[in-house]
Amino acid sequence: MLPDLTLDESTATPLYRQIADQLRHLMQRGHLAPGDRLPPTRTLSLHLKVNRATVIAAYEALESEGLIRSHVGRGSFVERLPALPGPKLNWEEILASEEGLPAPVAAEAEISFALARPAGDLFPEEDFRATLRELAASRELGGILQLGAPAGYAPLRRYLLQNAREQNAAGDDDDILITSGVQQGFDLIQRLLASRGETVVIEDPVYPGLKNVFVRGGARVIGAPVGLGGLDIDQVERIFERERPRLMLVTPNYQNPTGTSLSVGSRHALLTFARRHGVVLVENDLYSGLHYGDAAPAPIKKLDQNGDTVLLRSFSKIAFPGLRVGWVIGPRHFIGRLTEAKQWTDLHTDQLSQAALLKFAQSGRLEAHCEKMRAEGLRRLRAALAACERYLPKGARFTRPSGGMNLWVRLADPADSTALLEKARARGVSYLPGKYFAVAREEAASLRISFAGLDPARIDHGIRVLGEVFAADAAVRRAREPEGPAPALV
Amino acid sequence: MLPDLTLDESTATPLYRQIADQLRHLMQRGHLAPGDRLPPTRTLSLHLKVNRATVIAAYEALESEGLIRSHVGRGSFVERLPALPGPKLNWEEILASEEGLPAPVAAEAEISFALARPAGDLFPEEDFRATLRELAASRELGGILQLGAPAGYAPLRRYLLQNAREQNAAGDDDDILITSGVQQGFDLIQRLLASRGETVVIEDPVYPGLKNVFVRGGARVIGAPVGLGGLDIDQVERIFERERPRLMLVTPNYQNPTGTSLSVGSRHALLTFARRHGVVLVENDLYSGLHYGDAAPAPIKKLDQNGDTVLLRSFSKIAFPGLRVGWVIGPRHFIGRLTEAKQWTDLHTDQLSQAALLKFAQSGRLEAHCEKMRAEGLRRLRAALAACERYLPKGARFTRPSGGMNLWVRLADPADSTALLEKARARGVSYLPGKYFAVAREEAASLRISFAGLDPARIDHGIRVLGEVFAADAAVRRAREPEGPAPALV
Repeated sequence: MLPDLTLDESTATPLYRQIADQLRHLMQRGHLAPGDRLPPTRTLSLHLKVNRATVIAAYEALESEGLIRSHVGRGSFVERLPALPGPKLNWEEILASEEGLPAPVAAEAEISFALARPAGDLFPEEDFRATLRELAASRELGGILQLGAPAGYAPLRRYLLQNAREQNAAGDDDDILITSGVQQGFDLIQRLLASRGETVVIEDPVYPGLKNVFVRGGARVIGAPVGLGGLDIDQVERIFERERPRLMLVTPNYQNPTGTSLSVGSRHALLTFARRHGVVLVENDLYSGLHYGDAAPAPIKKLDQNGDTVLLRSFSKIAFPGLRVGWVIGPRHFIGRLTEAKQWTDLHTDQLSQAALLKFAQSGRLEAHCEKMRAEGLRRLRAALAACERYLPKGARFTRPSGGMNLWVRLADPADSTALLEKARARGVSYLPGKYFAVAREEAASLRISFAGLDPARIDHGIRVLGEVFAADAAVRRAREPEGPAPALV
Repeated sequence: MLPDLTLDESTATPLYRQIADQLRHLMQRGHLAPGDRLPPTRTLSLHLKVNRATVIAAYEALESEGLIRSHVGRGSFVERLPALPGPKLNWEEILASEEGLPAPVAAEAEISFALARPAGDLFPEEDFRATLRELAASRELGGILQLGAPAGYAPLRRYLLQNAREQNAAGDDDDILITSGVQQGFDLIQRLLASRGETVVIEDPVYPGLKNVFVRGGARVIGAPVGLGGLDIDQVERIFERERPRLMLVTPNYQNPTGTSLSVGSRHALLTFARRHGVVLVENDLYSGLHYGDAAPAPIKKLDQNGDTVLLRSFSKIAFPGLRVGWVIGPRHFIGRLTEAKQWTDLHTDQLSQAALLKFAQSGRLEAHCEKMRAEGLRRLRAALAACERYLPKGARFTRPSGGMNLWVRLADPADSTALLEKARARGVSYLPGKYFAVAREEAASLRISFAGLDPARIDHGIRVLGEVFAADAAVRRAREPEGPAPALV
């Protein structure tokens, strides 16, 4: 087929140039590709009613550009496509419209109190290997490999919902969605309930991964202060009255970063306020398995006979963080909509891990592991509290968690935990400064100590080093203060 | 400690009622919890400077409400907390603010052409069981269980990036992010580049999971028409000129739902237009492994010497859809920001599947499986095309894919593929009507046939049934047409 060229004798552009330009254009538009044969010069000249020499000149021009090649006796062929126009994209500019939020840097150090994760050396690796071998031999493997349901792997959903119902933490009107960890639970809830500037109350300080989901999603985020004694319930009541929030996220057990918990009374109070003001309560129940004394009090979800509370749980903190399986339990209508959002986000949660964790739980290995984690966690918590008591300088205060992975230290003002981190790292110890967890109140003198990943001896040594660093800093500051009142300027 | 009560003698409320009300309030606020002991009546009466009988009356009132219980000789204890206020949340109203988008219903039928997924009976189950056993015995398992990096499992990232570099589909300035399938790749790109009303061009018709991510994310979505011959490149040029989009998503190989592909020339042309207008090209290269003849042409990413094209790939379509592992390759700065978004979304992709798929690929089992899938896919494609040729009624046209899972049928107007689906299902055959895939152009007479999950005999039978259903419908419509021109009304 002859190319569709239109020559214009009225312009100043020579005809051979017009032919070359239009052929080049056809190449750019994908109508002529490398290897395609151009019409013989004689044929094209007859078709266009021009001199054959004109077509030959056009082909020579294209050949000099390297776009076509003529083979004697075989004709002319497209050799390569014209160079692409335009400069590289300006990625700096393209990406500037989105505000980057700083991610907490996991400070590497010999003794790191920076990461709230379970101790890898406590992982029941042999038990998990056995689980994987069982999965490899199981009949259900074929189904696991095939496309799954957005709501999650059905046997796991049944198992978890049944468990929650036995604990009265789920009713008949509740349903369950399996998510890629609790982090995705936050994200989906933001999308469904707080994507249009809705007001959301979160604890302050709080795990930044929770805050950032809502901030980035465009919610109006209000912090409810968490002190050394835990969430300030009276403040929550005032915030509900004043701000009329759509939802509140709360971590009733061993809150990250403070390690504080809500009493039964406070849970009840929170539910009372939420009902009075029509606030959706989202209960982040990530750590309740990690109680180092008595079991944690009943979840708010259990107190809520209306069934409106939304409960988030996960395997990640009690089992293996590398396997991303969490879940959301809530009213059926809400879970249905959340499942839709899940489908558009990533279709469904990975089924291999869902099936592996179900086997791990059903075999009793998970519970055995949890018991071990609790026994070891208690030793570590005691070591951390004893070391704080013994080594932290005068004026330092700290929380006394009864479970979880973290405690919160508040140094005497005006200590600066960010500046002090550099000095601590120079001595091989790291932590996360309080400011990483701030919503509205920057606690410059505070820091999070994540003790769960270190053995008692290292905890003791690490906190001793921190105590020395903090004390030295306080001494320097005292030395700088004038001895007595400054003399009057006369 | 005595409760902090304030009595007011000037009001009409009797003192005993004031005491009872304030104690109830303390219970509601969490300051008195079940099991807590109330002060002895004598102590409280002295403290409040009231008659002891007044306190006794208050306690009796609370006891009659069931809130406290008095035990002779032991005192009074909080029995249960006051009833919670407020009605159930109105979830219908809460969720109404978010528009629900209908999810395509996977029509269940004896022969279902509705789901674009690989045939489960072709899964190399034994090979995957062997891979799992190897993983269960591997040294790296401990690391897989621990918290991972947002960018993905390092050995898998290295492997995939190296592969892409060997194919010239990644340069030195490119980086890689592992996602929970390609669906999450779409989602993260929407968040990073199109969360503020940016204009996004997608193919029309298109896989609804892609469209919905951008529509829900608030992007301005423009469809570029895909006809029976594939994407209309000239239209794309006009859309770029007119709409100045931020990005375009394109599926160059075996597009879902049409099964059409872009020629080398069209890929080049698309890149030319994108550069000219500063459009970010996102290449959804999900199906290129499923070529049933020659390998698919080079990806656009390879043609793009500037390295700006963003390439999405996945294991889900060529291996196991139940394992959610995809990846994005693009300029380092862009991937860095995408990785941040990934971290806030779900921390990182599940590591068990990442490690299992890496082992599956490195062992050569994936490539062996792909060869089998291609050989079988060719048989199925041929069966589908032959059956369409043979059984579809006059006037029906269809695409002729050279790979993938889908072909697109366009019946003669005014057929309605949604209404026809009911008739087809009554005869045990299902498909997805064209309207599910519409962006702006509703093709009421079109439908998608996903042939990859069925063996040739069932494909033949199913398309024969469809042909009969469609032909019967056309015959009914013809019979309803008047035989000649209608007589003039006089």
